[in-house]
Amino acid sequence: MKSRQLVDLGQQLRVDSVRAAAAAGSGHPTSSMSAADLMAVLLAHHLRYDFERPAHPANDRFVLSKGHASPLLYAAYKAAGAINETELMTFRRLGSRLEGHPTPRRLPWVETATGSLGQGLPVGVGIALSGKRLDRVGYRVWVLCGDSELAEGSIWEAAEHAAYEHLDNLTAIVDVNRLGQRGPTRHGHDLDAYARRFQAFGWHTIEVDGHDVDAVDRAYGEALSTVGQPTVILARTLKGKGVEAAQDREGLHGKPLKDADEAIEELGGVHDIRVEVQPPPAARMLHAVRTGHLDLPRYELGDQVATRDAFGQALAALGTARGDIVALDGEVSDSTRSEYFAKEHPDRFFECYIAEQQLVAAAVGLAARGWVPYVSTFAAFLTRAHDFVRMASISGSGINLIGSHAGVAIGQDGPSQMGLEDLAMFRALHDSTVLYPCDANQAAKLVAAMAGCEGIRYLRTSRGASPVVYGPNEEFPIGGSKVLRVTAQDRLTLVAAGATVHEALTAADLLAADGIPVQVIDLYSVKPVDRRTLREAAEHTGCLITVEDHREEGGLGDAVLDAFLDGRPMPRLVRLAVRTMPGSASPAEQMHAAGIDAESIAASAKLLVEHAVVR
Amino acid sequence: MKSRQLVDLGQQLRVDSVRAAAAAGSGHPTSSMSAADLMAVLLAHHLRYDFERPAHPANDRFVLSKGHASPLLYAAYKAAGAINETELMTFRRLGSRLEGHPTPRRLPWVETATGSLGQGLPVGVGIALSGKRLDRVGYRVWVLCGDSELAEGSIWEAAEHAAYEHLDNLTAIVDVNRLGQRGPTRHGHDLDAYARRFQAFGWHTIEVDGHDVDAVDRAYGEALSTVGQPTVILARTLKGKGVEAAQDREGLHGKPLKDADEAIEELGGVHDIRVEVQPPPAARMLHAVRTGHLDLPRYELGDQVATRDAFGQALAALGTARGDIVALDGEVSDSTRSEYFAKEHPDRFFECYIAEQQLVAAAVGLAARGWVPYVSTFAAFLTRAHDFVRMASISGSGINLIGSHAGVAIGQDGPSQMGLEDLAMFRALHDSTVLYPCDANQAAKLVAAMAGCEGIRYLRTSRGASPVVYGPNEEFPIGGSKVLRVTAQDRLTLVAAGATVHEALTAADLLAADGIPVQVIDLYSVKPVDRRTLREAAEHTGCLITVEDHREEGGLGDAVLDAFLDGRPMPRLVRLAVRTMPGSASPAEQMHAAGIDAESIAASAKLLVEHAVVR
Repeated sequence: MKSRQLVDLGQQLRVDSVRAAAAAGSGHPTSSMSAADLMAVLLAHHLRYDFERPAHPANDRFVLSKGHASPLLYAAYKAAGAINETELMTFRRLGSRLEGHPTPRRLPWVETATGSLGQGLPVGVGIALSGKRLDRVGYRVWVLCGDSELAEGSIWEAAEHAAYEHLDNLTAIVDVNRLGQRGPTRHGHDLDAYARRFQAFGWHTIEVDGHDVDAVDRAYGEALSTVGQPTVILARTLKGKGVEAAQDREGLHGKPLKDADEAIEELGGVHDIRVEVQPPPAARMLHAVRTGHLDLPRYELGDQVATRDAFGQALAALGTARGDIVALDGEVSDSTRSEYFAKEHPDRFFECYIAEQQLVAAAVGLAARGWVPYVSTFAAFLTRAHDFVRMASISGSGINLIGSHAGVAIGQDGPSQMGLEDLAMFRALHDSTVLYPCDANQAAKLVAAMAGCEGIRYLRTSRGASPVVYGPNEEFPIGGSKVLRVTAQDRLTLVAAGATVHEALTAADLLAADGIPVQVIDLYSVKPVDRRTLREAAEHTGCLITVEDHREEGGLGDAVLDAFLDGRPMPRLVRLAVRTMPGSASPAEQMHAAGIDAESIAASAKLLVEHAVVR
Repeated sequence: MKSRQLVDLGQQLRVDSVRAAAAAGSGHPTSSMSAADLMAVLLAHHLRYDFERPAHPANDRFVLSKGHASPLLYAAYKAAGAINETELMTFRRLGSRLEGHPTPRRLPWVETATGSLGQGLPVGVGIALSGKRLDRVGYRVWVLCGDSELAEGSIWEAAEHAAYEHLDNLTAIVDVNRLGQRGPTRHGHDLDAYARRFQAFGWHTIEVDGHDVDAVDRAYGEALSTVGQPTVILARTLKGKGVEAAQDREGLHGKPLKDADEAIEELGGVHDIRVEVQPPPAARMLHAVRTGHLDLPRYELGDQVATRDAFGQALAALGTARGDIVALDGEVSDSTRSEYFAKEHPDRFFECYIAEQQLVAAAVGLAARGWVPYVSTFAAFLTRAHDFVRMASISGSGINLIGSHAGVAIGQDGPSQMGLEDLAMFRALHDSTVLYPCDANQAAKLVAAMAGCEGIRYLRTSRGASPVVYGPNEEFPIGGSKVLRVTAQDRLTLVAAGATVHEALTAADLLAADGIPVQVIDLYSVKPVDRRTLREAAEHTGCLITVEDHREEGGLGDAVLDAFLDGRPMPRLVRLAVRTMPGSASPAEQMHAAGIDAESIAASAKLLVEHAVVR
């Protein structure tokens, strides 16, 4: 396209953004208008993409990190012929694919859900990593960022990761329109301030007038020809560009323009320029994904093995059987035991250092390219990435997360290192799967099984060794449970998972010796829960005691409730969980202090049997 | 002290670190040994601190961002005479104040709990902000960081914040020992790599040999004389310094030295040098905290007011009544409505831009200095700061968090902007308070009341206007609830909070018209819950339907369970919550699609009354 046509295309993208927001009665036209010329030049001259084949391996990947500028994205889709005028006008309506913030659940051209700022670039780094280290089909990753979101630390985790990995297939485009939601950003139009930061982190930087289409064109060209480092294009722009009443003015964020018709006229009126987007080069994936026999580790009954060890060994085996498995760790692979995978499959292991947001974002990017990521760090530190996991859930991203060092059972290190809120965090995510194995064979089987789930899958592992209680041929379906003790005379049911299963078994022995037989259920699948088994136990014993190495709220005890929430008669319930703020102590002392060891369980059970209530 | 004595003091700190870890059988001596000389010089020459009066307003503040180096901290306490030899040897034992990672719950000299990396510097920025903008007694904030934690984005949020606020009272000391837990860091001993980054963010940087006590001494002096910007001292050190078998070697993180006796001998043996730490200058707080009459806003019954507006107006009024109230926002004060406070009390308002981790960390720092912070952003984006809130809870920090734009009720913006997991996140924190008002008068009262709670307090607000259902003189004790409808014939109880209270009231009307009277409870205090009222309702109606604009797990429905977990007979329960992944739609469409509007509630209630089960 000639410069004049690029300018016209930019104006059309503005007009269509204004129109979509006006039709919806909400949205972010001014944030779209600032980046319209950047988008026009990219779409017309540099992006290589087949909108009819979004799965084409050689397609470039575009991520709208400033997800609120969705009108601009949809206007670009229209210009590329991917959507029509009628659909554009459904923006933000019930049932429309064109949501307020774009998601891949609805649109095949969207790589990842955005709308929580500072996440698009981190995920883009994951996609670029996939391109550079695994896919190797030469696609380029383009990420359009806002300037406000550069305040997010996750941007700098991404900047560090991208430069360290020499991701010259990645270009960040920053729409420096100087205005955030509430008012001016810290650095306004000081492009140098941003350039200094990116340069310090090892990026090639280009400063440009974001409304000069020729300059923008040259900037993209320079980015494409930069070798050995990622490029950031810092573009000086005006929010609301092109409409006098809106341009560079405060107080107009996230609102339709007051007089849309007048604005459209000022922008040159409605047009329908169609862009012939360059197709990607012919390509086939070079990594023909191997799938072979899965030879999981096998542990002998009675052996003492930590579930984190079983995780690491099972993951290494899974990586041998399946070529699409990748692993990422946050500089604690010697603790999480993902090091077993790293040693056997170094080409598919990604060291992400102590940057848990980037750790999860990189996995989301790899998953977007079809890989099956396993992400590991301490359960406690996955809270650092909560917003990223939340957004991954919105994307429908299929990632596996493993949190080690769960609960007070870790011992001396104290509460900062204890995962005590992780079950609550992962259970509350839409369509998530939450698993908590108690022994090594169970852990190994679940590590393999979780790969087949939809959405976010979480597996919780323990630091300390525990006895193997299941044989290596036992099966553990997701959504199932295991009844470890049952007699016709059971007075109540102990429901445990992970570390507390062993305590519950010992408690059952203590109680049996006192003439109080109890049922024991291993609820390794915390979500979904095994409703049928819980209901049978409720009918059989009338009373359930849940025991968990987790805070009272949102964990195992609450999960049991899921079996009874259709209005049917409820069993009586007692929930044993960590109610105190732990300090340093040995694992056994911690379990006792928290009231979740065998002795505490037995005491509660006796109270319940003898007095009908516990407290 | 002379150089020779400083060197000896450094060796003593190493020896005591080795001894404490050896006695405990766990801990991080090698990470302590690298920073021992940095600590020795700081303690002997630059820190101004009265260990007998930790609350002294002019005390310098020291934060151990690399919290695992706790043996070094405790060795320094011993050298300063704050703890004795016997206590040092209780390190990591049950009941000891000397936890694996330091917390202010146990030790009066600790400003904030550390152990989750990348948090000490952000909190230190908050303390320095307090010193610069509010306290103005000239204290200095010293933060000892590890090099591994510089990969955390939160460090760069803090770097940005500190430089922008010209915090020349803040000095970060980075112990660049080149080794993380698993192996080498990205940048090893390349001090320049770190210096470039900090310079780009606006810091004064000093590179130094961290084992040259004279050079370190000069570096501290240079930091003290630097005006207008924060200083970072980048110190080249060796992990395990001083013990040949450990020095600069991989694989020795977080473990006692193999031969402690030999190591102690190599380090010069056990000594008991006592440091006379400089006292702080005489000072009194210049901000005599005003406490006046609280004139909360009053809303008329039937008016349409958003609870976020009531929050903003109440906070402004609270700020007028109390001089110790401060507010912080993440660049969305026009949406959260903290802008009302900002306009009336600009001196006590802190704009933190889009950096939610730093937003919460700054509040923790301000709270450490005695201020009462109110932190606001979208409920969804508080998930970004989950790990910071978790650590604040471990600190016992008294901070108020307000999450706006809760639930699907926000409408068109879509799921990325909807707080749907916030109740689960905040309920699962130890000793937290979780509030969810449904009208403006209730919101205003709770905003004031939450300041008086212990620990983490969370208040959830709504975007849209809703009718005022309580008079301005109504009281809302924390831990209470309101029975809004009750008759002797009630067939079941609807339990709602916030947005769903209004739906429940409408549903009750619909059901009454169909001859099905129901009770309605407004459970505005989600944690702690009003056990008595819930139990009475259970006895009265036998059946509870909970309705919440939140995911099924961890929210209001699970909270109700808290009233019945002592083994007593349970009511039948039905939980209505958001089970779908929302898209864009109007608020009313969203509530209906999620099955939590009046119509859906009434339909569930009828099913339950007519068929005894719902699903």
